Amino acid sequence: MPIVMSVNAGSSSLKFQVFQMPEEKVLAQGNIERIGLNDSIVGMKFNDQKVEEVLDIPDHGVAVSKLMEVLIKYHIVESLEDIKAIGHRMVHGGEYYDHSVPESKEAEDKIDELKVLAPLHNPAGLLGYRSFKKALPECKHTFVFDTAFHQSMPEENYIYPIPYEYYEIDEIRRYGMHGTSHLYLTHRLAEILDKPVEDMNIITCHLGNGASITAVKNGKSFKTSMGFTPLSGVMMGTRCGDIDPAIIMFLEKKYGYTPDEMDTILNKKSGMLGVSGISSDGRDVEAAAEAGNKRAILTQKIYVNSIVETVSGYYGLMGGADAIVFAGGIGENDSVMRQKICDRLSVLGVKVPENLNMGVRGIEKKLSSDDSKISVWLIPTNEELVMARDAYANLCDEK
Amino acid sequence: MPIVMSVNAGSSSLKFQVFQMPEEKVLAQGNIERIGLNDSIVGMKFNDQKVEEVLDIPDHGVAVSKLMEVLIKYHIVESLEDIKAIGHRMVHGGEYYDHSVPESKEAEDKIDELKVLAPLHNPAGLLGYRSFKKALPECKHTFVFDTAFHQSMPEENYIYPIPYEYYEIDEIRRYGMHGTSHLYLTHRLAEILDKPVEDMNIITCHLGNGASITAVKNGKSFKTSMGFTPLSGVMMGTRCGDIDPAIIMFLEKKYGYTPDEMDTILNKKSGMLGVSGISSDGRDVEAAAEAGNKRAILTQKIYVNSIVETVSGYYGLMGGADAIVFAGGIGENDSVMRQKICDRLSVLGVKVPENLNMGVRGIEKKLSSDDSKISVWLIPTNEELVMARDAYANLCDEK
Repeated sequence: MPIVMSVNAGSSSLKFQVFQMPEEKVLAQGNIERIGLNDSIVGMKFNDQKVEEVLDIPDHGVAVSKLMEVLIKYHIVESLEDIKAIGHRMVHGGEYYDHSVPESKEAEDKIDELKVLAPLHNPAGLLGYRSFKKALPECKHTFVFDTAFHQSMPEENYIYPIPYEYYEIDEIRRYGMHGTSHLYLTHRLAEILDKPVEDMNIITCHLGNGASITAVKNGKSFKTSMGFTPLSGVMMGTRCGDIDPAIIMFLEKKYGYTPDEMDTILNKKSGMLGVSGISSDGRDVEAAAEAGNKRAILTQKIYVNSIVETVSGYYGLMGGADAIVFAGGIGENDSVMRQKICDRLSVLGVKVPENLNMGVRGIEKKLSSDDSKISVWLIPTNEELVMARDAYANLCDEK
Repeated sequence: MPIVMSVNAGSSSLKFQVFQMPEEKVLAQGNIERIGLNDSIVGMKFNDQKVEEVLDIPDHGVAVSKLMEVLIKYHIVESLEDIKAIGHRMVHGGEYYDHSVPESKEAEDKIDELKVLAPLHNPAGLLGYRSFKKALPECKHTFVFDTAFHQSMPEENYIYPIPYEYYEIDEIRRYGMHGTSHLYLTHRLAEILDKPVEDMNIITCHLGNGASITAVKNGKSFKTSMGFTPLSGVMMGTRCGDIDPAIIMFLEKKYGYTPDEMDTILNKKSGMLGVSGISSDGRDVEAAAEAGNKRAILTQKIYVNSIVETVSGYYGLMGGADAIVFAGGIGENDSVMRQKICDRLSVLGVKVPENLNMGVRGIEKKLSSDDSKISVWLIPTNEELVMARDAYANLCDEK
């Protein structure tokens, strides 16, 4: 029975899950952090165990060797040859990829080329892939793109109202992110409802530190709130989401900020952190709000409004929706925030009674009452499973 | 019976209307264009007459003298003393003014101070005021602010998800524009329906070359699509509206654009003009679309989606709406565009049959059928009347 891995490589981290396929059983999952820094951490959970080692890991190559060592040491795999396939998360597939693809020189070159659009993520993804490729040359590698699911958006939903040349020459358009998550949620809800994916007219809300909302029409992404980059759309932990673009030019002129400085302000110092001045973490903001902190209360109100306006906007844009799905750190765990959002959406016919929602965390559950015009679901997302499935599918195709 | 004027002074133009109050009868209206340039044009319509003179007008002072000369020459007024009050459009009132105010040194200073937020408009407004003040020192002047109506927005609808200091120190927040128009439409619909203004829960769509949509709750502005500046919100003739803010930093880095150059691109070369490559005028785009031009068709689709998403978003944000009002150049005259928008809004219960809408231009009319869940109205906007009313009210207060 083949072992399949999902790998999400960042510039200084490497997240992984180990699956037994086709059973989709998770054998282990973990994270290597602080690669290239001192005191790197290798953490892994399996069965009911949790192991952690602190050592210096200078680069991704060493990280992969260490990971292989750990997998064997704890008998997750008996031999490295057991690992038959790996799905690698590649953030940006541009307009080239609307689904996962097997490794190839051509795809590698494209991903490298697309680093213009994802300067931090695409190089890290390739670095991860190449390190695993070296360690496991016989293994079958698959590239899974965060943008792929959104490639189905119609032109009018991805072209920005700016000079068209910037699309033609610079490839500026809405790409969307979290595609693997929105795809998982869509397919999982179809499975739960025992309906064809093509019948899914739903709105999926991936609300984590990064957050995006997708209008899914006939099972396909129709519009999504992240755009050219993950900065836009709804308010996030540290990202501003949509703002008046003129604010940027105003601040640049007033303070002499460079584009990179503006980028840092809007990506790392805005959102919940920026408004509250307390934290980018919804839990900290909630605690402060409960204690009466005015800016924390304001932060929550802006956040709720941002979600309510986007969901309602997509409801109109799509011509209605049958279901709303919550996922992501906030979506899965913060029932207070979900309640506030759903109460406001009652105007669309949403009915989420407190007894079905409050206190519910991290499990698959219908949150709406049976007479709700739009059903509301909590579905813990599982991007890693999609990656493992796609890797496994490519493995089977090859045989 | 007092004569009251409304004046809208731009940096090189001066629009005016002359009313007989309290009858609100329009005696004349016109525009002086190309002030400070060669071949300035003085145009005026009154009764069924239209007059136009071309001459050199070096500054606003000369423009006002010329205007007075014309008003007397064509017997709009018998003597300049007949003009008892003037309402001057001042674009930006910041957080200081939620309604029109009589002239004062203090208000003048505030408007001057607020030129930071409206660098082109506030100085022009003051220039116009001072020129009229000099010509008509006995006349009672009133300042009417484009931002005033939106000062009722709750905090969570005007604070941006960026570091809070930029609000405290730099006054960056959503102000909104076209306030005088949204106010007029709200009050006029209340009048038509014979209901108190406080009962108005409506969405007003001012769709001209500039465009803004306002959610009006209990007769007050609750949220509006223009923001810190008139650049944001829905797609416009030459303005982009909301886009991923990161596009700006990307273009600045790639092409070395300065903030001023970015400003020009997003304010003057984007919107309908940018996408179509043809024109900023919806009529030109429509003609091209009918002839099969793909980018013109795309432009219309983006435009419709932009309106539909915003109206639906506000519907959700407000917890429902009783009516939608169309105004502005496109809203009042482009029945094809209105039909496309209303057809898409049928998901909210909007019913606008073609026979009630198609071909209707520039008149006050209910466009929806009686069984429409949300009534839809065409109301030609009249900012000048609001200005004249406010000026007249201040005149009466003084007596």
